[in-house]
Amino acid sequence: MNRVQSVLYPYVSVDCVVFGFDGERLKVLLIERNMNNSSEGLSDKKLPGSIIYENEDLNTAAVRVLHELTGLKNIYLSQFHSFGNPERSNNPRDKQWLERTTKLKIGRLVTVGYVALIKISRKIIFESESTTARWYDIKSLNTFQLAFDHNKVALEALNYIRNKVKYETYTLFELLPQKFTMTQLRNLYDIILETKSDVRNFQKKMLQVEGLEQLDEFQKDVPYRAPRLYRYNKRKGAAPSK
Amino acid sequence: MNRVQSVLYPYVSVDCVVFGFDGERLKVLLIERNMNNSSEGLSDKKLPGSIIYENEDLNTAAVRVLHELTGLKNIYLSQFHSFGNPERSNNPRDKQWLERTTKLKIGRLVTVGYVALIKISRKIIFESESTTARWYDIKSLNTFQLAFDHNKVALEALNYIRNKVKYETYTLFELLPQKFTMTQLRNLYDIILETKSDVRNFQKKMLQVEGLEQLDEFQKDVPYRAPRLYRYNKRKGAAPSK
Repeated sequence: MNRVQSVLYPYVSVDCVVFGFDGERLKVLLIERNMNNSSEGLSDKKLPGSIIYENEDLNTAAVRVLHELTGLKNIYLSQFHSFGNPERSNNPRDKQWLERTTKLKIGRLVTVGYVALIKISRKIIFESESTTARWYDIKSLNTFQLAFDHNKVALEALNYIRNKVKYETYTLFELLPQKFTMTQLRNLYDIILETKSDVRNFQKKMLQVEGLEQLDEFQKDVPYRAPRLYRYNKRKGAAPSK
Repeated sequence: MNRVQSVLYPYVSVDCVVFGFDGERLKVLLIERNMNNSSEGLSDKKLPGSIIYENEDLNTAAVRVLHELTGLKNIYLSQFHSFGNPERSNNPRDKQWLERTTKLKIGRLVTVGYVALIKISRKIIFESESTTARWYDIKSLNTFQLAFDHNKVALEALNYIRNKVKYETYTLFELLPQKFTMTQLRNLYDIILETKSDVRNFQKKMLQVEGLEQLDEFQKDVPYRAPRLYRYNKRKGAAPSK
């Protein structure tokens, strides 16, 4: 190893991309920085994240920050990619916010990205002293700018999930309620894979997925012909137990 | 985001796990720290790696360090996982080596792992002023301790490749010479997936891989019946162009 020519102390953070699905839209959980009492009115949206603590492992930091900012516990988080562009924290607004919240002078920030798929019915604490958590349609990421490079981080997470779903269909079931309709499953699949599946072919294909069970139950309280419900039986399927 | 209670400045490094295949054994490229002139005789083996420079992106650092330590250029490196156990650089020998080579007091080290698959015939500079590069059988990782947590990093890289090969068979061809025998392909597959494939079934399965072409050529200079050669035609196969 050659001598390091010049070293700046980078801080290391973790950021969590949490996806949920409401039956029609794929959503991502964002945090709003409540700084309305400041004259600058910093209220950008960002991914739930934090600088890692001393003696804290990366995974531990990801679990901690998600719990602190959303109340979510026992969430399976997968590390998917790290982001280290030296300019990713150059925006003065981001720098200012970092200094206020951490009381540190932070130059460079390398972040380790984690992704989680959760049932959107999970209880979330949406409001804390200094932040507000909220679900946003994944498509809205094209319409506004998150803090740091968080648009990129979120889209890379989606890409990671897309690749996973291609080969491990059961990944989808983590985002669906326990019982779901074939239309919900198809909507979710098409959003993630950016496809437009044919209704019949899709159903045929899905019924071959090990563990997918057709129920003798139908969706209630719908103004049209009630669609059949399905569920995913983990014990019969290929999903690994976590 | 809650205020950071206590922050230690972690250094960020990159480490490269480079795999090669000699027809029989899967190998990993390791660096020997030449410190024989010191009384401590530090000569542990490690993965090629380095602390990232100021204003250097992670990918750029990985490409740089691999070139510096092995002469390898134009190598496709994939980021696969980051390692941040606070104790991963606690070994006094590793600490001592870090201080000597970087002239820095380094506490904690978070490393971003990269993996590359290369043809073992690639020209490598095996000896530099302070390091020696060498291929080691991947199985030997069970028999000796690398610096830091590099055994773990290398095995995680292998795991990453294993998952890739499961779904994207063409990954294997990056490790094989341009023309190869079915036995070489099967050996490689079995080492990575930890399987023992049946000769006939394997051949049948592989001939279905898009882009795999059976040639009218046979291996030369073998003391037994010359086996047929195959090659992978990227343009016809599913491998994405990089």
